[in-house]
Amino acid sequence: MDNLDTYSIMVHGGAGDFGNLKSDKDRVRCLESIRSVLEHGRCILQSGGSALETVEQCTSLLEDDPVFNAGAGSVLNEAGKVEMDAAIMCGATLKAGAVAGITNIANPVQLARVVLAESDHVLLISAGAQRFADRWNFELMPDSYFLTPQRLAEWEQARPGQHGGSIGVDAETSASGGEEKYGTVGVVARDRLGSLAAATSTGGIANKSFGRVGDSPILGAGVYADNETCAVSCSGVGEDFMRTVLAKTLSDIIQFKALDGLAAAREGIDYLLRKVKGRGGFILIDNQGRCASAFTTKKMIHGWIELGGETVCQL
Amino acid sequence: MDNLDTYSIMVHGGAGDFGNLKSDKDRVRCLESIRSVLEHGRCILQSGGSALETVEQCTSLLEDDPVFNAGAGSVLNEAGKVEMDAAIMCGATLKAGAVAGITNIANPVQLARVVLAESDHVLLISAGAQRFADRWNFELMPDSYFLTPQRLAEWEQARPGQHGGSIGVDAETSASGGEEKYGTVGVVARDRLGSLAAATSTGGIANKSFGRVGDSPILGAGVYADNETCAVSCSGVGEDFMRTVLAKTLSDIIQFKALDGLAAAREGIDYLLRKVKGRGGFILIDNQGRCASAFTTKKMIHGWIELGGETVCQL
Repeated sequence: MDNLDTYSIMVHGGAGDFGNLKSDKDRVRCLESIRSVLEHGRCILQSGGSALETVEQCTSLLEDDPVFNAGAGSVLNEAGKVEMDAAIMCGATLKAGAVAGITNIANPVQLARVVLAESDHVLLISAGAQRFADRWNFELMPDSYFLTPQRLAEWEQARPGQHGGSIGVDAETSASGGEEKYGTVGVVARDRLGSLAAATSTGGIANKSFGRVGDSPILGAGVYADNETCAVSCSGVGEDFMRTVLAKTLSDIIQFKALDGLAAAREGIDYLLRKVKGRGGFILIDNQGRCASAFTTKKMIHGWIELGGETVCQL
Repeated sequence: MDNLDTYSIMVHGGAGDFGNLKSDKDRVRCLESIRSVLEHGRCILQSGGSALETVEQCTSLLEDDPVFNAGAGSVLNEAGKVEMDAAIMCGATLKAGAVAGITNIANPVQLARVVLAESDHVLLISAGAQRFADRWNFELMPDSYFLTPQRLAEWEQARPGQHGGSIGVDAETSASGGEEKYGTVGVVARDRLGSLAAATSTGGIANKSFGRVGDSPILGAGVYADNETCAVSCSGVGEDFMRTVLAKTLSDIIQFKALDGLAAAREGIDYLLRKVKGRGGFILIDNQGRCASAFTTKKMIHGWIELGGETVCQL
């Protein structure tokens, strides 16, 4: 029989400086959300649920919480619209699904899961992804689900500061980021049968150039899972993770250097800094269920349950 | 002074079975095109041109040749339209540019180069990429540039056979592929100063689902370049290369196992087969200018000039 204590889960809500998280109230609000998602993941994994099911459900919860920059809480692009990206990957089969540039979908990670399960493709974008969502009867949320008065006010406020080109910086690393733009979200898990899975979801960069896609929906950049190595989800300045293909680099360090997750995390964050002075971080669970994280930003909102142990949250 | 003979270049025009390339005339036509592009690359590199400039110019030539599935020769998607993807990466800086789901642009690789040079982003898609092209005064080609009577006839012919779902196979690996759908294109080069660069461009899958993006514009999947390791361009069933992130895997094998390009190519193609039974191949130039290639399909149209030597073409 499988060992009951071999499940692990990690959750992140973005990497950045979080200069806007001034009050204890904000800090508590974030940590409570991460803790609640971890406990939900524990329930699924304890009752024998798969890693894939766990990362989908937990990412959906993070997408539903407007405090994070994904799903309901997505920031607005320079046209004042919400464009979201998400990806999910199964470490047992290396099957994956991803969507980029989609609108009016409450849970992009669920659409990515259907791409994984029901199509021969990995990545669908824009109008094509939208048509795929229609075909699978995804409910289209009204713009008002995303464009709350507060979100629009933040967008109006951020516009002059961002105007003209400073579009290479993620919301969470931007000084002009509003109160609730804490970053992308991601979940990695290992189930009791030893399978790994990873998911990442984002609303992208505040005031981003229409059509910009970051690392979140790109296998190997913002997300990767392989039962032989690890499951990874990244957050930060997407372009830094795309140029270094960091999630796959971490997997390859384990594969080709025979290191464990902790050693690979140390080596991976050095690689990110050395190669591109990368800004951001990642969460990682290795094939033994060990949890590791690293970041080059001041903070990363994250938490974990390692091998069925206690729930730990950090900000 | 730099050594005059340290430049290398490799070109591919797709990996597949090429059951449609029956006649000697077809074979000669393909090989002549590859040879002519290689000689153009030799001129640039011999006169001190950069690897980045070389892969852009040579990929543009391949895009202009309707015999290949990129640029002018792009296959039509299931809506009877041309949607193209391309990427370019500089191994000296790890800067990269990529576009996906674009239309009416003669040379997608040139648009990718402007993304690399003039934006803070790596990947622009669909309407956003199109708007970026407008801003940089890219000429919009009429549909007739791509939708030749022959292309439309092929599309009509392919529709019934492909209808209903067999959209997971690239044009070049599909039995119903028409006479001129030989595959994606890619170029890798090393210049006399030792810098590497890579570019890949494609029209995607014939009759593909609208919005499907393959490995070509994804850093680490269909293209990668790092002066410390190698430059790679892949072709084949895009999803196999995305799930294994194969271009970055090859770079990581060199980085973390201290192998040369030839040994890495052998190990990389084994990895592709073992992990996902991958269908396709790649060209690779390592940091010493050595040329390597490998493929799991029956054939790959490719050629090379290694360290300033003779021009070799294979089909």
